[in-house]
Amino acid sequence: MTRLIPELLRRRLPILDWGAEYSRQTLVGDLVAAAIVSIMLIPQSLAYALLVGVPPQVGLYASMAPLVLYAIFGTSRALAVGPVAMASLMTAAAAGQVAAQGTPEFLGAAIALSTVAGVLLIVMGALRLGFLANFLSHPVVSGFITAAAVQIAAGQLGALLGVSSKGESLLEILHSLVPSLGKVNATTALIGIAAVGFLLWARGGLKPLLLGLGLGDRAADTLSKVAPAMVIVATTLAVWGVDLKARGVAILGTVPGGLPAIALPPVDVSLWTKLLVPSLLICIVGYVESISVALTLAAKRRQRVDPDQELIALGAADLGSAVSGGFPVTGALSRSVVNFDAGAQTPAAGAFTAVGVAIATLFLTPLLFYLPKAALAAIIIVAVLSLVDIGAIRRTWAYSGTDFAAMIGTIGVTWLDGVESGLVVGVGLSILLHLYRTSRPHVAVVGQIPGTTSFRNVERHAVVTDPEILSLRVDESLYFPNARFIEELVNDAVAANPAIRHVILECPAVNTIDVSALESLEAINRRLADGGVTLHLSEVKGPVMDQLKRSRFLQALSGKVHLSQFEAVASIKPELAKSTRAAPRAMAGGAAGVEPGPPSQPA
Amino acid sequence: MTRLIPELLRRRLPILDWGAEYSRQTLVGDLVAAAIVSIMLIPQSLAYALLVGVPPQVGLYASMAPLVLYAIFGTSRALAVGPVAMASLMTAAAAGQVAAQGTPEFLGAAIALSTVAGVLLIVMGALRLGFLANFLSHPVVSGFITAAAVQIAAGQLGALLGVSSKGESLLEILHSLVPSLGKVNATTALIGIAAVGFLLWARGGLKPLLLGLGLGDRAADTLSKVAPAMVIVATTLAVWGVDLKARGVAILGTVPGGLPAIALPPVDVSLWTKLLVPSLLICIVGYVESISVALTLAAKRRQRVDPDQELIALGAADLGSAVSGGFPVTGALSRSVVNFDAGAQTPAAGAFTAVGVAIATLFLTPLLFYLPKAALAAIIIVAVLSLVDIGAIRRTWAYSGTDFAAMIGTIGVTWLDGVESGLVVGVGLSILLHLYRTSRPHVAVVGQIPGTTSFRNVERHAVVTDPEILSLRVDESLYFPNARFIEELVNDAVAANPAIRHVILECPAVNTIDVSALESLEAINRRLADGGVTLHLSEVKGPVMDQLKRSRFLQALSGKVHLSQFEAVASIKPELAKSTRAAPRAMAGGAAGVEPGPPSQPA
Repeated sequence: MTRLIPELLRRRLPILDWGAEYSRQTLVGDLVAAAIVSIMLIPQSLAYALLVGVPPQVGLYASMAPLVLYAIFGTSRALAVGPVAMASLMTAAAAGQVAAQGTPEFLGAAIALSTVAGVLLIVMGALRLGFLANFLSHPVVSGFITAAAVQIAAGQLGALLGVSSKGESLLEILHSLVPSLGKVNATTALIGIAAVGFLLWARGGLKPLLLGLGLGDRAADTLSKVAPAMVIVATTLAVWGVDLKARGVAILGTVPGGLPAIALPPVDVSLWTKLLVPSLLICIVGYVESISVALTLAAKRRQRVDPDQELIALGAADLGSAVSGGFPVTGALSRSVVNFDAGAQTPAAGAFTAVGVAIATLFLTPLLFYLPKAALAAIIIVAVLSLVDIGAIRRTWAYSGTDFAAMIGTIGVTWLDGVESGLVVGVGLSILLHLYRTSRPHVAVVGQIPGTTSFRNVERHAVVTDPEILSLRVDESLYFPNARFIEELVNDAVAANPAIRHVILECPAVNTIDVSALESLEAINRRLADGGVTLHLSEVKGPVMDQLKRSRFLQALSGKVHLSQFEAVASIKPELAKSTRAAPRAMAGGAAGVEPGPPSQPA
Repeated sequence: MTRLIPELLRRRLPILDWGAEYSRQTLVGDLVAAAIVSIMLIPQSLAYALLVGVPPQVGLYASMAPLVLYAIFGTSRALAVGPVAMASLMTAAAAGQVAAQGTPEFLGAAIALSTVAGVLLIVMGALRLGFLANFLSHPVVSGFITAAAVQIAAGQLGALLGVSSKGESLLEILHSLVPSLGKVNATTALIGIAAVGFLLWARGGLKPLLLGLGLGDRAADTLSKVAPAMVIVATTLAVWGVDLKARGVAILGTVPGGLPAIALPPVDVSLWTKLLVPSLLICIVGYVESISVALTLAAKRRQRVDPDQELIALGAADLGSAVSGGFPVTGALSRSVVNFDAGAQTPAAGAFTAVGVAIATLFLTPLLFYLPKAALAAIIIVAVLSLVDIGAIRRTWAYSGTDFAAMIGTIGVTWLDGVESGLVVGVGLSILLHLYRTSRPHVAVVGQIPGTTSFRNVERHAVVTDPEILSLRVDESLYFPNARFIEELVNDAVAANPAIRHVILECPAVNTIDVSALESLEAINRRLADGGVTLHLSEVKGPVMDQLKRSRFLQALSGKVHLSQFEAVASIKPELAKSTRAAPRAMAGGAAGVEPGPPSQPA
């Protein structure tokens, strides 16, 4: 017990591990990374707050406590936690279903989503339910991210151009945006489009330019990553200097400074119940996004990430956001990569980033008064458009029709009916399509390659078969979606070939036989016996054989289980020869040819 | 075109096939079978009408047109279609949700269920969607049937004992039944219990007795099958002769005679929409019941059954029931077996059975006036209790924990919340449990059996491994539920063993790799390369290789795809020896050891 507690503690508090070996050198790496990530995070947190539909300072609140909590509980040494685009959009959609944007109830719903998501993640982690995230197949996630990114970008077009637009699906957004395009505010549009242009150019063009200006490679790289902060500074100065507010440019206005009050979120069971499904979707999508980044970065340094502990750490981060009045957060792709590249050595870098955000929240908010909302819209648009992955759609199309169908279904439903329906339909589709695919497995009639002990597909190879023996190789586990298919297949094959006296199922690719398939095998065996045909199995795997031994099937089986297909055919042929000589008798028996009794025995 | 139409016609109208070869001999067989099945069907159809909660003659209506239509469209030569217990119970539950029992609206709902179920079945048949029935795994169906049978029997206890009881779940039924047990009508209970006793005894004891009385084997067998008809005659005579009605025995009363009016069911889209899900459940459960019987009987004579055409035939039968004012029907287990044993040769036997029922409907209904309802309850109870399969529960428990969980979940929810919830939860559970099971597939670390080319699990065999090579055999197709599991597994294994330089995935049991698994393989390959480890595949199946060739994976793969595991290890070892000599250089490279360049090349 005394040894168990420290073991569990170390598992649940990874900070004990890396904290013990914390050195001056790791401190320097962490501090540099934290400084850079803070400069990225501050404008992003404001932008994502506007995307959710809550006051800008709430974005800053969601960027402090969660980072500290992740530093304590997280197992990734480079993951940068905080507000992200996808979770923010899903929060906006879910909160919009219970309250109107801009109301205190709306902010309350966002906080409640973070509370419920945090609790769900911790429960999933404690119960080791991380595998639930596996039900989101890659094509569904990829299609969903592409669809949501386009939708987020479209949703920001209104702010970018100085007109109003809103809606929970691309259809609704376009429906509200298109009629108002005549009322575009030219100055706002100029700022917005210029910012988008600069940010797009900065991705590829800023670093070479800075290198050309004589900066070192690392400095140039770092500066090109903080382009959004440059946009914030430049556009704020422009609006303040030229008084563009008078020309109708929407500005951020007063952002209350000061740290958030820490308070337990109000207990509202009926609200939490209403938000249960959206919270689950938000936390699973956030988890998938986060764990993918964490695994990728950990592999680069051969470090371990514990997927179940990650659930707990992200849950703690969400609860941290909730108690400081913020919305759901998760591990962010772009900031994590920057954090890693900038030299973050431990999760402490996240805690230092939180300190950076806290300093900004305390002292810099007055400077944000003249920040044009169009600049924030530009930052969001450029950030999310990098998530659009047309190549993935093309590659999926080339690789697999069923995966492509799930992907297109997800994208279509997301655009027509919103993010939640898109995700739910996507998950349902990928499960159904998977079951459909395995419900009609590849089954080959096999024959012997002359002169060898090998058996191959009769359609692909020149092989020898015996008209009285039907050998089938099933290339799939036998379980409920395909159990009846195999039944019908054997039934039809035997009905079509009256000469058949033995059926051999070759099972090298059968990894499991569930109860449904077991009953189908029993039915096949019984029906074949009724028709005077003997059933054999060959090449059954060890674990499957162990399982079959716990059933009555092996006793009922009219034929035998053979170690190899060759052995099966070799042992049946002599019996066939014998029973052919005594054909009239053998034809009448249920299991003809298997145990030819003495000739005097009545059939 | 001219050849295509007759081909399609023959497929859609199997009557053209068997009708062309109809002979005097088949006529005799069909007529005898029809006579016996009619005598079984008449009391059953009355009993199931009471089980649904509609007037008794509606059961007779559901036993005429459907049989004729199945004879035209059906492909099974022995299936006896008509009212069955399970579909009747489900109809009662579904209709009860939109109207009160005994009202014209309730009967209307039952007819609507038959209409919608008929249309759904025909659509499923035309679109070849019969595979949907596969999602009902055997343990779920078996658990559901056992649970529903117990529930049906409990629901009839009230009528059997002369007290009132009702409810849509076992819980509700028991809740209403137990308090009224003090008011049992002794005479009714005597009739009911005596009838149950006789019917139970008749199953095993009647035939030997008749044989002892000198009857032939076939006659004795047949007579023992019509025991329910004997109960009807005996109890009706008893009630009429001794005037038990005066003692409070509930009787059937006036059953209107005459054939049903044929009329299109009223079009009520909102009602049909409400009944869509229950109809789907009724028709799928009915289809599963029916196709199992049909396949079993067809196999005995090596005949074919076309599962898609069966959907159309059962759909036609349901529509036939609807236009004659009846409720949903399907192929009945017990009557089909009797039909087959009695010598039915073609579906015409079903049409002749319909004629038998029609004659009874025209001329015999006045005789049913004194039929005690307790006798019908006894017939239902004995019929459904034979469906309770405790052995299946025990065998499932012994064979598979996940299948057992799905089964018990189905039974529990059915008893607590009713048949529809039970079925829906059962289907959901079996899909989730299946996905969970395949989400953590069996993966073996393999090594070479000394002196052979075979590789086996290191935990089961004495094998040789190389500390720099990790060979993993995955015993499952790679697809979304297990993609991330494999990623984490490889990640952890390599993080735990810094000596590893090559990872080989042996894929003889991988039947498919979907897009999710492909992306996981790409991520594994990239991450391993980042850590200086090379990824190889071996024993990839032909169809899987064909698919991989349509992706970028094979170009990106740091190692090679080897034909066999032996070849993989054999080709890697010499490279390892080379790169060990140049170890400091090789350690730094991304794909160390694969393509060792000239010694002068910088890393």
